[in-house]
Amino acid sequence: MPKSKAQISVSLDGYMAGPNQSERDPLGEGGEGLHGWAFKLAAFQDAHHGEGGEGDENPSNAVLAVARAEIGAVVMGRNMFGPVRGEWGEEDWRGWWGEDPPFRTPVFVLTHHPRESFELEGGNSFHFVSGGIEAAMARAREAAGGKDVSIGGGASTLRQAIAAGELDELLVSQVPIFLGGGESLFAGLPAGTAGFELREVVRGPEALHLTYAIHS
Amino acid sequence: MPKSKAQISVSLDGYMAGPNQSERDPLGEGGEGLHGWAFKLAAFQDAHHGEGGEGDENPSNAVLAVARAEIGAVVMGRNMFGPVRGEWGEEDWRGWWGEDPPFRTPVFVLTHHPRESFELEGGNSFHFVSGGIEAAMARAREAAGGKDVSIGGGASTLRQAIAAGELDELLVSQVPIFLGGGESLFAGLPAGTAGFELREVVRGPEALHLTYAIHS
Repeated sequence: MPKSKAQISVSLDGYMAGPNQSERDPLGEGGEGLHGWAFKLAAFQDAHHGEGGEGDENPSNAVLAVARAEIGAVVMGRNMFGPVRGEWGEEDWRGWWGEDPPFRTPVFVLTHHPRESFELEGGNSFHFVSGGIEAAMARAREAAGGKDVSIGGGASTLRQAIAAGELDELLVSQVPIFLGGGESLFAGLPAGTAGFELREVVRGPEALHLTYAIHS
Repeated sequence: MPKSKAQISVSLDGYMAGPNQSERDPLGEGGEGLHGWAFKLAAFQDAHHGEGGEGDENPSNAVLAVARAEIGAVVMGRNMFGPVRGEWGEEDWRGWWGEDPPFRTPVFVLTHHPRESFELEGGNSFHFVSGGIEAAMARAREAAGGKDVSIGGGASTLRQAIAAGELDELLVSQVPIFLGGGESLFAGLPAGTAGFELREVVRGPEALHLTYAIHS
């Protein structure tokens, strides 16, 4: 049964990115500390055309590999796709990832500004959906052809998906650092948000991986 | 080697208590949901003159029992001891816990308003320290006679202890509910707070227990 899933790295104080995020510093101050555990892994390097990296001797590698497996389509928010400069005033913006992005599936971008789809190398294509999270998820599920749909982020898109009952599984990779501010996923969810069931706990050397099933 | 330690229960969105805390509702809206896992345990009932409760068939019981063992003194903030009404204007206030509080050790209350010590039943005594967290910890360590010092809370007192390098071990019991607001421990710590090392992970049926050693 295909599902919708997401993976986030959070600090102990609950931030997915540090303070003062900008186009030049999308992770915010200190935010790179959230991702060091992943960058060094073979499962990450594989996806990003790198080489080597730690394999399954590091328990985080299998966790990341599973999180990234069986994905048939990706949904992401407007800001994850590109900088906001007059919304497609520059139609030549084709994402942050160059000509061969690491998704290798259709990617559906939530936006209020319609734009034509385009394709890049490696199976990547970008589509722009203005009907909200439900519409984007419906299109992604169809495109995924029986595989899972990954919700890439950012925080606002993930909250919309959780609120709409559109996220089935969330992998939270908890890193024991403090960012002191920034972008929080959970702090924006309303009281009484329910249905999070802890399914799996894996300790990596630098991150604790908590997989929640979300029942809506 | 005796240490200083604390145990907190937090929601997935990082709150130790829900919104709109008051004297009549010290846990805040929804905050009782953070403590249900503990109330039902033998380790909790024992300490609070209750009977029965779930034993070690529930993995949370041993975690709570260890957290509460070997405590020789307690430090707490002003608000945890009593309501703020003209600061000791009523010298007859003797804490929330009746004549036989569950601490059974000397308790050191941080306050700017000096007051005489008093004793209650069961080994409980209350002492009022106006020299800040370091002074309170020094007195508690001396009184503990080689046992551990427990920092009872609230959030502000715990943050002061962490910032001052006075907390050696923190047990975070993470409950998969959302409170949507309230009192956060971690969100008030400054960026770059460091030295949290995840030592132990125990899954209880309703809470995930994460023990951090804090290196200062």
